[in-house]
Amino acid sequence: MGVIVQKYGGSSVATADKIKSVARRIVETRQQGHAVVVVVSAMGNTTNELLALAASVSDDPHRRELDMLLTVGERMSMTLLSMAIHDLGYPAVSFTGSQSGIITTDNHTDARIIRVTPYRIREALDGGSIVIVAGFQGVSERLEVTSLGRGGSDTTAVALAAALDADYAEICSDVDGVYSADPRHVPGAARIEALSHEEMQVLADAGAKVLNAEAVEWARRNGVEVRCSKTHGDRAPGTWIRQRAGLAQRRVVAVTDHPGLFFLEPAEPGLPCPAELESTLVAHGASDAQVWRLPGGWSALVPRQNVHGNRAFLQALDALGGVRVREDLTLVTVVGRGLSTPPSVLRPAKKALATAGILSRGTLLDAGRVAFLVDGSQAKAAVDALHRALIEDAPRVGPPTDSPDPAGAPD
Amino acid sequence: MGVIVQKYGGSSVATADKIKSVARRIVETRQQGHAVVVVVSAMGNTTNELLALAASVSDDPHRRELDMLLTVGERMSMTLLSMAIHDLGYPAVSFTGSQSGIITTDNHTDARIIRVTPYRIREALDGGSIVIVAGFQGVSERLEVTSLGRGGSDTTAVALAAALDADYAEICSDVDGVYSADPRHVPGAARIEALSHEEMQVLADAGAKVLNAEAVEWARRNGVEVRCSKTHGDRAPGTWIRQRAGLAQRRVVAVTDHPGLFFLEPAEPGLPCPAELESTLVAHGASDAQVWRLPGGWSALVPRQNVHGNRAFLQALDALGGVRVREDLTLVTVVGRGLSTPPSVLRPAKKALATAGILSRGTLLDAGRVAFLVDGSQAKAAVDALHRALIEDAPRVGPPTDSPDPAGAPD
Repeated sequence: MGVIVQKYGGSSVATADKIKSVARRIVETRQQGHAVVVVVSAMGNTTNELLALAASVSDDPHRRELDMLLTVGERMSMTLLSMAIHDLGYPAVSFTGSQSGIITTDNHTDARIIRVTPYRIREALDGGSIVIVAGFQGVSERLEVTSLGRGGSDTTAVALAAALDADYAEICSDVDGVYSADPRHVPGAARIEALSHEEMQVLADAGAKVLNAEAVEWARRNGVEVRCSKTHGDRAPGTWIRQRAGLAQRRVVAVTDHPGLFFLEPAEPGLPCPAELESTLVAHGASDAQVWRLPGGWSALVPRQNVHGNRAFLQALDALGGVRVREDLTLVTVVGRGLSTPPSVLRPAKKALATAGILSRGTLLDAGRVAFLVDGSQAKAAVDALHRALIEDAPRVGPPTDSPDPAGAPD
Repeated sequence: MGVIVQKYGGSSVATADKIKSVARRIVETRQQGHAVVVVVSAMGNTTNELLALAASVSDDPHRRELDMLLTVGERMSMTLLSMAIHDLGYPAVSFTGSQSGIITTDNHTDARIIRVTPYRIREALDGGSIVIVAGFQGVSERLEVTSLGRGGSDTTAVALAAALDADYAEICSDVDGVYSADPRHVPGAARIEALSHEEMQVLADAGAKVLNAEAVEWARRNGVEVRCSKTHGDRAPGTWIRQRAGLAQRRVVAVTDHPGLFFLEPAEPGLPCPAELESTLVAHGASDAQVWRLPGGWSALVPRQNVHGNRAFLQALDALGGVRVREDLTLVTVVGRGLSTPPSVLRPAKKALATAGILSRGTLLDAGRVAFLVDGSQAKAAVDALHRALIEDAPRVGPPTDSPDPAGAPD
């Protein structure tokens, strides 16, 4: 019996009714003949409520204690989900990250999974149980409970899928897959049937929230297939993320703006980049920042979501000196493959922005992306213009989806 | 440096401000030169909220999963308390029941502590930390998380005090000690300076809430001294519970009514006691029930607080047949020592009730107690009458408190 690992995010289990509905979805998967391991996040807003509780007793909560507190959220959702499955007449057992053998670094509140030793999960699966695992958490070699940082439940699911040699990891959320742009803002946006790990990684780094970037990295390194599906409502095909062989042909996959960035630049033209900039970034959780030190100057992009406390972070940057922090800019990224191969995709992209009256303040280009630094107020318009020019109206250079490839053609 | 184990109940840590205040009290104890281990209950009403959550997803929550859920409550309070102590500049570390080496039976939701192996606590104490332990929980030999049932945090504290060879266990609550009767109802009630483990055990069994009966049993068996203190407000002497040598002299210690009982009797006179009564009681959590099978008939007293779900319990009794359940009676108990030794204390007690116009429907008498079964509506009046007759107006047969004993007299 093949194993499927399913992950349900916080909004999928936000209420008792949603938990019961997720329980039914899990049982359906089981009835289809799969062994099922489920990774679950904390209910709805629980994690933020726990952070607020910590803030109410301490200005700077001790990290080890904060991890013990935050991991409560998934412990609650996993037990409730397990109870709901029992009520449907199926055996289920819930395990914490520690009980699941999720071994992590001891970097509290932002730990990384080192390895997975799922002895208890295997034993429970062999005994016929559906297994529910607390996402977002693990245990260090020193036996301390750790949390993986935001979005860590995706990584838990992919790492477990790799360790259990699962058929695939299914990431279930409110949306039915990965789209070529945010369909709430771009009417022409379409669901992508399949994309490569590399494409998904660029997309996640560029700000798409459907799947955590580190989880995609785990999936790529371990060859795990990932399916992004909708939790509630009718079953839809979703989006598959798969290993793809060398890709010669250009293909523009999606356009996205970043949901929240700090842009750092010299406080005055010509001021050098502080030597301790990178270590300061890492110390405040922003290990996913991008820093450019170039002959003509320097700048840095810092995703806000992983920064531990904006106030302390901004104070630390202030202490470095010579750094200007801008919150009015964002990055709009075109994700694809072969994008730096001539004929350059940069030219039609720039033309589309200019036609829409959008000023690009900077450009990044490599094989997987073309990105523009624009005013935050113009981000949605920029996505719209780029999506129309490069995807909707574009001559189809590569297949728009990975639906059956042309016979025998290497893809 | 001698170890003191302190236990703080749920209402002592119900809010962020109370948690900070408890943190200051703990640090004061540390400043007085003690190594401090703190056992903490779930904040305020958390346990009931978690039970309601479980009921929202399942009519009959799976016990193992329920334990994983319920133990969340103390995990939250322990981390918050530890953070608040860090904020005062003192090192603190929190441990779950499992991390503390609280090994229990695997009887989920009503487990009993088998032994305590506090390696991590010792190591943390040796390193200079204040240690915070989640009360009410442990781990079975099969590595499953268990809960101890209501009031289990007291037992955690006493069992830890025994295992750590602590100077004493301090049980901190909203009241400043054990009283000769509930001071809210009996104006003449006085704080008891010290009483024996046996006296406290009878008092706890009779319904006094200040200390859990099983915890007192642990303390008695292991010779642990217990101090009952007030959490907030000025430090007061509290009440000491100590081992006492053989006590010849009579002493009436306290009078209490039980806060909630089912009284079981034959549905019709002469009907025999169902053979499965005891096993039915145990199956529903009421292992602390008292059953009398006597030639003239049978009856049973079942404390409501440990029953798992009243509805299921009453249905199970109904299925047994021949059992009448009364909720209109309660037991009023006079606690002391030497009470069955002539001259009988029963006579003045009965006289006091008769004078107050209270009908006694049954009587229990042994060396440690005289108890009367009365209408629930008359319970407070009965306590008042007995307290006045046997304590306030009584000729002092034994010392009213255990303040310095008469020179050389064995006590």
